[in-house]
Amino acid sequence: MPIDLSYGPEVEDLVARTREFVRTEVLPVEDRFGGDITAAGGDDLRRELNAKAKAAGVFAPHAPVEFGGHGLDMSDRAPVFEAAGYSTFGPVALHIGAPDEGNVHMLAHIASDEQKQKYLAPLATGEVRSAFAMTEPSPGAGSDPSALRTAATKVDGGWKINGEKRFITGADGAGFYIIMARTAGEPGDRGGATMFLAPADTAGISVDRHIVTTDRSMIGGHCEVSFTDVFVPDEDILGEVDEGYRYAQVRLGPARMTHVMRWLGAATRAHDVAVDYVSQREGFGGRLGDLGMIQQMVADNVIDLSATRALLVRACYELDHGNHASTETSVAKTYAAEAYSRIVDRSIQMCGGLGVSDDLPLARLQRELRPFRIYDGPSEVHRWAIARREIGRATKARRAQGGDGNAR
Amino acid sequence: MPIDLSYGPEVEDLVARTREFVRTEVLPVEDRFGGDITAAGGDDLRRELNAKAKAAGVFAPHAPVEFGGHGLDMSDRAPVFEAAGYSTFGPVALHIGAPDEGNVHMLAHIASDEQKQKYLAPLATGEVRSAFAMTEPSPGAGSDPSALRTAATKVDGGWKINGEKRFITGADGAGFYIIMARTAGEPGDRGGATMFLAPADTAGISVDRHIVTTDRSMIGGHCEVSFTDVFVPDEDILGEVDEGYRYAQVRLGPARMTHVMRWLGAATRAHDVAVDYVSQREGFGGRLGDLGMIQQMVADNVIDLSATRALLVRACYELDHGNHASTETSVAKTYAAEAYSRIVDRSIQMCGGLGVSDDLPLARLQRELRPFRIYDGPSEVHRWAIARREIGRATKARRAQGGDGNAR
Amino acid sequence: MPIDLSYGPEVEDLVARTREFVRTEVLPVEDRFGGDITAAGGDDLRRELNAKAKAAGVFAPHAPVEFGGHGLDMSDRAPVFEAAGYSTFGPVALHIGAPDEGNVHMLAHIASDEQKQKYLAPLATGEVRSAFAMTEPSPGAGSDPSALRTAATKVDGGWKINGEKRFITGADGAGFYIIMARTAGEPGDRGGATMFLAPADTAGISVDRHIVTTDRSMIGGHCEVSFTDVFVPDEDILGEVDEGYRYAQVRLGPARMTHVMRWLGAATRAHDVAVDYVSQREGFGGRLGDLGMIQQMVADNVIDLSATRALLVRACYELDHGNHASTETSVAKTYAAEAYSRIVDRSIQMCGGLGVSDDLPLARLQRELRPFRIYDGPSEVHRWAIARREIGRATKARRAQGGDGNAR
Amino acid sequence: MPIDLSYGPEVEDLVARTREFVRTEVLPVEDRFGGDITAAGGDDLRRELNAKAKAAGVFAPHAPVEFGGHGLDMSDRAPVFEAAGYSTFGPVALHIGAPDEGNVHMLAHIASDEQKQKYLAPLATGEVRSAFAMTEPSPGAGSDPSALRTAATKVDGGWKINGEKRFITGADGAGFYIIMARTAGEPGDRGGATMFLAPADTAGISVDRHIVTTDRSMIGGHCEVSFTDVFVPDEDILGEVDEGYRYAQVRLGPARMTHVMRWLGAATRAHDVAVDYVSQREGFGGRLGDLGMIQQMVADNVIDLSATRALLVRACYELDHGNHASTETSVAKTYAAEAYSRIVDRSIQMCGGLGVSDDLPLARLQRELRPFRIYDGPSEVHRWAIARREIGRATKARRAQGGDGNAR
Repeated sequence: MPIDLSYGPEVEDLVARTREFVRTEVLPVEDRFGGDITAAGGDDLRRELNAKAKAAGVFAPHAPVEFGGHGLDMSDRAPVFEAAGYSTFGPVALHIGAPDEGNVHMLAHIASDEQKQKYLAPLATGEVRSAFAMTEPSPGAGSDPSALRTAATKVDGGWKINGEKRFITGADGAGFYIIMARTAGEPGDRGGATMFLAPADTAGISVDRHIVTTDRSMIGGHCEVSFTDVFVPDEDILGEVDEGYRYAQVRLGPARMTHVMRWLGAATRAHDVAVDYVSQREGFGGRLGDLGMIQQMVADNVIDLSATRALLVRACYELDHGNHASTETSVAKTYAAEAYSRIVDRSIQMCGGLGVSDDLPLARLQRELRPFRIYDGPSEVHRWAIARREIGRATKARRAQGGDGNAR
Repeated sequence: MPIDLSYGPEVEDLVARTREFVRTEVLPVEDRFGGDITAAGGDDLRRELNAKAKAAGVFAPHAPVEFGGHGLDMSDRAPVFEAAGYSTFGPVALHIGAPDEGNVHMLAHIASDEQKQKYLAPLATGEVRSAFAMTEPSPGAGSDPSALRTAATKVDGGWKINGEKRFITGADGAGFYIIMARTAGEPGDRGGATMFLAPADTAGISVDRHIVTTDRSMIGGHCEVSFTDVFVPDEDILGEVDEGYRYAQVRLGPARMTHVMRWLGAATRAHDVAVDYVSQREGFGGRLGDLGMIQQMVADNVIDLSATRALLVRACYELDHGNHASTETSVAKTYAAEAYSRIVDRSIQMCGGLGVSDDLPLARLQRELRPFRIYDGPSEVHRWAIARREIGRATKARRAQGGDGNAR
Repeated sequence: MPIDLSYGPEVEDLVARTREFVRTEVLPVEDRFGGDITAAGGDDLRRELNAKAKAAGVFAPHAPVEFGGHGLDMSDRAPVFEAAGYSTFGPVALHIGAPDEGNVHMLAHIASDEQKQKYLAPLATGEVRSAFAMTEPSPGAGSDPSALRTAATKVDGGWKINGEKRFITGADGAGFYIIMARTAGEPGDRGGATMFLAPADTAGISVDRHIVTTDRSMIGGHCEVSFTDVFVPDEDILGEVDEGYRYAQVRLGPARMTHVMRWLGAATRAHDVAVDYVSQREGFGGRLGDLGMIQQMVADNVIDLSATRALLVRACYELDHGNHASTETSVAKTYAAEAYSRIVDRSIQMCGGLGVSDDLPLARLQRELRPFRIYDGPSEVHRWAIARREIGRATKARRAQGGDGNAR
Repeated sequence: MPIDLSYGPEVEDLVARTREFVRTEVLPVEDRFGGDITAAGGDDLRRELNAKAKAAGVFAPHAPVEFGGHGLDMSDRAPVFEAAGYSTFGPVALHIGAPDEGNVHMLAHIASDEQKQKYLAPLATGEVRSAFAMTEPSPGAGSDPSALRTAATKVDGGWKINGEKRFITGADGAGFYIIMARTAGEPGDRGGATMFLAPADTAGISVDRHIVTTDRSMIGGHCEVSFTDVFVPDEDILGEVDEGYRYAQVRLGPARMTHVMRWLGAATRAHDVAVDYVSQREGFGGRLGDLGMIQQMVADNVIDLSATRALLVRACYELDHGNHASTETSVAKTYAAEAYSRIVDRSIQMCGGLGVSDDLPLARLQRELRPFRIYDGPSEVHRWAIARREIGRATKARRAQGGDGNAR
């Protein structure tokens, strides 16, 4: 039973075809994305690319086979998503962008058969997009989910939801929402959250504003959404009442990792652009790539990319084996997000004045990659969680050895 | 003769009035700048603000008194320029932005009386803007000035200039150019460059393209400019023939430092926005500003701002005392440019999702500040120059001690 | 009233003579120090060097003139102490090491005339050494002084002190102690501390153990000291009862800065050794000093040394002008301590295998310099203090503007 | 064929037994090592521990089964060596320290049957130790092997070797040497090196001096060794004449990784000591481990340890599959060596004054771990090699696409 880091031939093949698809179909239309804050190119272009991805056999590598996908586990998703992410719009083309990808993942695990037909089927095939409404304006649920304030009240045959959400990715144009609302307890309690499914045209759901952020590759933007007396029938509760946080955990670990995968492609592209540049540009009596300080930046990029990939492999392995993997996913996410900022920053520096110009894609990639140190939990929150577990482990170990609690 | 770090009362007063002017007149119109790549608000707005600055007695703190300025030396410019830079458009308002400020500085030192009347007078008063045409497309003059390719050929009564320049800040709309061209030697030689003065409407000068970069506060943009048989009469040679690099050095040290001053204001603003945010926003059961990881970022910003100011004081002191100060200005510029990137990045991180949004000015400030690690000599070139001098110093010291060149 | 960063001719002269003294008298006997954990060469060698320093006119630059010193203020101490610190034993030779230097400073400010004759006079001349007994074993007074547990009880004609101290630098062989003990309140209160002067041979004072640390240049070591019914007469109270913390603050700011000065010399030496090495050693087809990655380390050392010096100048200026300068000294101390670790680490790396060997002084310097990030307040505590003040300032500013406490 | 990161049960068992062995047999005698520079406790203690390791069934996990070892491949060595490295003397106890471990590895791959009986058999069982004599004093073979100056001249029946080596780990007390000497070409050529086997008592071999370095866990020290007319018979040539560099590469990749494995244990121990400390020590009104800046250090340690392990798994997998894995081993080595310095430094910082004292093992671990950024190729050399390959790859890719060599 030796360590095995190889991928099966069908995965290798899918990776190769994804790379080719991105190169030939997505990169050439990148400039049709991004100008429009609201829609990353818009759903028309998305549907056009989705059709091409289907034709190329690279669509929805993550979705269950019965819903038209390739049914890849987390480990196998990694190289495919990375290949897609080489263009920041590759994920939209393959329909593996946030939040749809994570929502497919969660629905496949938790939804009832009826819910799967009603919500998962059209989502998996790209007929509709979706949104995951958890984050709230301060002082509501953000990095600290126990602060949840959006409330669902039991009414006859269902629930009435009231509250405000923000940074709801993909909300503008989404076909349906997964809404996290409090069904028990008070803001400050960790318990008592429930997930509700609701078509976007349900009365009382309103997309109020786009928050204009530096990244532009998320179709549907990052929106402020309000829920006013939104009625959700009992049969559209996702999973069990009051178990929302538990399900969110199911979603969060994998969703963190697919972010890492996609943006790993983008970081690799930034690196490639820079290495290509310094491998031919002359200066100071020779090729830039022969200068020690440039070589240091190239090598540091390679180290960062390698470490990210290695940490990703470990985290995906743990998730695929049914482990919660909180530390492994926090470590991989935190390392990756910071590495990506470093990589793109070094890549810009290597390219000098062109690096900060629109003549190269690097400045744009920096705008896309910077937020990842904040989205899906800021680095500080992940570090806090990692440290808390580590210190808890030490405390438990000392007690097990009969430690008396007095440090020497 | 004790160390004295205080400013005279008239400087303290000018700083206070500059702060007030920026707060009341510039910050409120910041959103009228920047949308337009080509002109940072345009010359109409510039003239409007220049008039207000004159009325407030804060216009042109650097310009010679006989041309309507305050005649401040480098040491005294530092706190005034920093106050102006608190808005990235404050320098335009006070007419102390690049490259005009550095051109005023150089013309005041080198120009003949006739040239001062013809070029410096309208520049100092803000009647016109100017451009400094040195950088060329690869493989021409960039961080390595000896690669200069733009050539001036002697003709009857003057010179004919041919060549291409790029990253010429402020070119679009400039009233005149200072053009660096080779008058002797070949690309690769350090000698033989000459500076020429030419009105922008001289036949053969063409602004071909704006290079769209992440920063938007430089009025007139960063342009590609070509010179085709541009005739410059002998009397518009700035200084002596073949002495262009020596003059460029006169300009470069101070110009580096005024960049540091202006962007120090911008970095301070980013820090202020973040500290204000964390001092009131709640999360994780308390104020963000009470969390250790946030406090670390606040403190690191303070350290970076303090070190930048301290290095700037040293470099300006040396320049004011007639020293070349190559190492002091390289050290201050390199430290500052990297510190500003760190400061604005930490400030973003402290503000979470809002930090990467247009709801706060931080993402915009990041775009403005990032290029400074490249402009005016990339950090790598400054480090190379610093190290070369330091190693040369050691070699000379060892020889003076009769060292035989064998390390122990 | 322009910025002035120059030193007076008598200070320049003292710096030059101190450099020469260290080069000719201290560096040659460095290997006679340090082998012995307890005494950094021992008091015999110290007295021998002190006599030579007096002969050379470089002894006690900080001590009041009436007690045989040069009476330099903080600004002027900086370059002299740095010159002395070029050998880690230079401070012992000039009698400006911790804690004696800080104790001279404090006694000169606070002691009564009788106390000056009894304690300051022999200390200033190097007849005796001294110790400052504040830090206690956990959970007593350390970085958090309010935890003070050593207690002084009023008895007839004086006080009885009981308690335990640790990390008491110079205790072994000291002639007298300044003891911080609680005279009011409970551990956890910040108030109620008093400073007592006591000859080392007072009954009940016991040096129990040397804490063996990586640094060896502090004569008398870092000791655990216990006080058992130590009687101190009322006339040996230093300053006023219950005002000990206020006096400690008087001592702490300057003492921090003199640490920075001394170790700046040591860091400069590490840098010099490395630059000398790479300026002659060959490898990879040329001189090591011509390789970009080596140049980067050289330049980063120069930047770190420059920034430290610049921050030190600022902090000393504030102290000399009677300001508390808590932020300035915390910033300078924190930056310096971290910079020194970086500098010596880079210097080692530049020298390869020799860098970690005893063939060069670098590995020893690393052991000397590492603790400074912990001594005199760990970097984390200084950052906390810096941030707290900065956030407090923002809060106050917002309230002054009528801010309602709601962040946008 | 899914990704598999699990170990077989026999490996898991060996890891568990190694941990227990280190805890019960090695850690308690750690203070008997290290005081003596020359021998890390000496061969008597080594033999005593080797016997205990054999009794515990944990001896020589790497050695071929036919020579009494466990025959583990690189992937399976990783967790076992890490467990051994938890004490810096665990590797000596298990006989897996440098250079013996690498020499066993190389002899098992290259030696003739006779050589295996004569050299490998006594080495594998711990009867003797060995040395690998490649590095030379400047300007000879170091990080740049082509500079090899030690020369072997053909004589009747064998070769005569003359030259000087330094940093020869384990030389004092070694039973035999593997000597790298030039058999063709001149210093500066990469070719023409040959490996020779020679008993330590061969005439002309002299251990001249111990280089005293900060690390003390290498039994036999780091020595300067000279070879004067050392005769080696033809049958003691290891492999083929002139193929020495190729074999050195066979040794170097795995030897790098086993260094990473062993010191990973040491870094983990440093982290454990610090986490244990902050999980109980009080300060600033609570447990140190509840402070954000402490948590950040704990989390960063976890991230660094995780990334090192993940990179190690990747590099070992490649080596086990017969790949040269130059980039993978350089990346893992460089990351690990720098991570270990960071980890032990943070661990010291977390423990305050105790961290730099001998009351905790951290200061000692820092001395052991620092040199790894230099040994086995300084980080700068690895970065250079990584970058050169990466830039070469880009150049080749561009040519394959018909790129004309002009960057845009």
